[in-house]
Amino acid sequence: MTPGAPIGNHRTMPSQFDPPSGTRDFLAADVERRERAFAVIRSVFARYGFEPLQTPAFERLDVLLGKYGEEGDKLVFKILRRGEHEASGEADLALRYDHTVPLARVAAAYGSQLPTPYKRYALGPVWRADRPGRDRYREFTQCDLDTLGSVSLLADAEALSAQHDAFADLGLPDFKILLNSRRLLIGLLEAFSVPAEIGAGVLISLDKLDKLEPGEVISELTERGLAGEQAADLVGALTAADSSDRVRVALSKTEEGTAGLDEVDAMMSLLAGQIPPGRLVFTPRMVRGLSYYTGPIWEVTAAGVAGSIGSGGRYDRLIQQLGGPDVPATGSSIGVERILPLLPGADGATAARLDVAVTVMRSDFATQSFALAGAARSAGLRASVYLGTSGKLGRQLKWASDSGARWCLIYGEQEHEAGTVTVRDMASGEQVQVPAAEVGTYLASALRGAS
Amino acid sequence: MTPGAPIGNHRTMPSQFDPPSGTRDFLAADVERRERAFAVIRSVFARYGFEPLQTPAFERLDVLLGKYGEEGDKLVFKILRRGEHEASGEADLALRYDHTVPLARVAAAYGSQLPTPYKRYALGPVWRADRPGRDRYREFTQCDLDTLGSVSLLADAEALSAQHDAFADLGLPDFKILLNSRRLLIGLLEAFSVPAEIGAGVLISLDKLDKLEPGEVISELTERGLAGEQAADLVGALTAADSSDRVRVALSKTEEGTAGLDEVDAMMSLLAGQIPPGRLVFTPRMVRGLSYYTGPIWEVTAAGVAGSIGSGGRYDRLIQQLGGPDVPATGSSIGVERILPLLPGADGATAARLDVAVTVMRSDFATQSFALAGAARSAGLRASVYLGTSGKLGRQLKWASDSGARWCLIYGEQEHEAGTVTVRDMASGEQVQVPAAEVGTYLASALRGAS
Repeated sequence: MTPGAPIGNHRTMPSQFDPPSGTRDFLAADVERRERAFAVIRSVFARYGFEPLQTPAFERLDVLLGKYGEEGDKLVFKILRRGEHEASGEADLALRYDHTVPLARVAAAYGSQLPTPYKRYALGPVWRADRPGRDRYREFTQCDLDTLGSVSLLADAEALSAQHDAFADLGLPDFKILLNSRRLLIGLLEAFSVPAEIGAGVLISLDKLDKLEPGEVISELTERGLAGEQAADLVGALTAADSSDRVRVALSKTEEGTAGLDEVDAMMSLLAGQIPPGRLVFTPRMVRGLSYYTGPIWEVTAAGVAGSIGSGGRYDRLIQQLGGPDVPATGSSIGVERILPLLPGADGATAARLDVAVTVMRSDFATQSFALAGAARSAGLRASVYLGTSGKLGRQLKWASDSGARWCLIYGEQEHEAGTVTVRDMASGEQVQVPAAEVGTYLASALRGAS
Repeated sequence: MTPGAPIGNHRTMPSQFDPPSGTRDFLAADVERRERAFAVIRSVFARYGFEPLQTPAFERLDVLLGKYGEEGDKLVFKILRRGEHEASGEADLALRYDHTVPLARVAAAYGSQLPTPYKRYALGPVWRADRPGRDRYREFTQCDLDTLGSVSLLADAEALSAQHDAFADLGLPDFKILLNSRRLLIGLLEAFSVPAEIGAGVLISLDKLDKLEPGEVISELTERGLAGEQAADLVGALTAADSSDRVRVALSKTEEGTAGLDEVDAMMSLLAGQIPPGRLVFTPRMVRGLSYYTGPIWEVTAAGVAGSIGSGGRYDRLIQQLGGPDVPATGSSIGVERILPLLPGADGATAARLDVAVTVMRSDFATQSFALAGAARSAGLRASVYLGTSGKLGRQLKWASDSGARWCLIYGEQEHEAGTVTVRDMASGEQVQVPAAEVGTYLASALRGAS
């Protein structure tokens, strides 16, 4: 093949051959690494009885627009109408922005055909016209797991447990799950006499306690209209060493707070046997920005990663708000693109493409060489003949080595006359003569011996 | 879950909840059937040393436009520019129309970073704004296998052999591969003295010999300007019982024809040991409409399916024409959407979602029930607790049955007192008492016994 730009050059200099801004080409090593992780996640989710759902890449524009707020709508990739309508410059379709709006549509479309509850996962690309940046792409894989149609706290615990097991099975070295409850937060605002009209804003400020100093958050809270003493009390309760005890005392005075505490305690108890001690942490200051949560909420963090690598919670009214039926729902989402770089072997070398490389020493031996590759494949090995133009053994051995092959089969004049094949061990350079008809059997047993 | 439309209704009546025209939602059974087939194809291609490539769903508009002819350009889904440019009604991106143009771009972008030759497969959706119809979708999976950078006929034979093995491993019951050569067809035109300026049109008419009567094709040929006797001679040679012998005699008089015959004979010889006798058939009248082929061409047909289910051939100039480097290329393509309905088990029932269903008889037993499901999962089984609101055993057993579970674990008051679990075999209705701590071991051994 005619070489293109020198290695690495295209990474730093934008070229006309780059994929569109914010998207990526995945060559073999990337595809294999990603698919290996996806297979682990799918397998864990299936173990919990979640089933796959795949929806189209695009939806009708009216299905998507107005569901993500004004800022979200701006990030939707819109598809131009076709044919005679193209000139109008209007869009009628749009690339999916997440997996939740399609889930709401599917729940409405297939209702009674779906199991009750409907436990599904979706693992596939979504598209957002965000400004591309480090770890921020315009095409990225999202991995959601949701249960529609159950009000049971067991459904919340399952969604969290399945997500935990996915991270654990992926081999993620060090992660924590922060657990809280939306109802608990509402009780907290009540317990600290925060006026209802500034409640949402106060929660937004409290959410910054993992990034800002307590004093900075207190300033924000007073700017939002909270009395200084109140703000200091609230932040003090959430940041003290005995925070969870102090919060418990305060919450026990309110109805929502008590209900929220019960939720958290029940979740902790359900998951105690499933998640190693210390990994699941009740975190009263954890808010989760998204206002649609109605019950337990959680967030997964990993050592050395800013922000969360996963999240989840109950959102009993969202599916209807998104155009679906009125069903309770809970689910979790994995930040696939953020965790892939954290997994063991993420920076590993390219895997070998072949187990067996077969030389083609003379064009009139091509049929024999082709058949030898076929015999190796029948023995369960990845095999190919040399496809280049050189008749030189050295060149062909170089190709065998570049392909990562463990064995090279050499079939030249001597072998042709003797009815044998030379099997070369590429690592040791050792060569043995094997009768041509027995090569498949020989390789199969060598494979068993070598592995 | 609140039921939506009654079962089946959405299939006949278009609804606001349907996916966009020409696209499909894949529920669990569909996803599993499709992914199973895709896994077989990937595994065969890997065995030949082909590696995966995944490119973005969209490309820059200028990369795609002008590559598929005027008709093709009309079928490209264009994406509106974003932000302040949206109002212009202009597009700057477009959904990929096939896997070949992205391959040409990747070959140009990564040149020397790719192996030589570059053997890759692409299996994923492409989008075309075609008029939707039976077996014609606007979002459909395309599966391509290509080798860039080898002029060797072995590369053609490999592309064909890998495609054949994919069909065979998928269990496709009855298929044939028609083999021909573009050079042979050029020799044929020369041998029958077809004027160069009507050659392309003549080939288009000859391509219809599998659908039209010989007389109809002769009429078409004379309309295109061929003398009546010439047309009759040509069609006669291609449809006679001894067609391949008559064609051979005619071709041997021309240089291109001889070269084409040699290609076909070499392919037949290379593949004789790999493909069962009679499945690969030299078919001189087989043309393949696409003018970009330059060497061997083939087409795969299946009993009971009109048209082809796969195709392939050498196309040495196309990658450069599509904006890539000047590299020889050969490849094959599988009509995934057409073969899926032909595969064994295509109309099979929905697979079970669970192996083990765990009752939740009392809310204060929820933790024990949740832990039992965890123990079953640790034993390698798919397991879930009951997520509904009924405390009745009958309702919970109905759920266990609907989930396809083989075992139901019942943990009620009696079991709680005795420290046991009742394991119910859902098929036989038999029940045994197992100590709670031994349920995982019990199920694992029951699974080995049952499978």
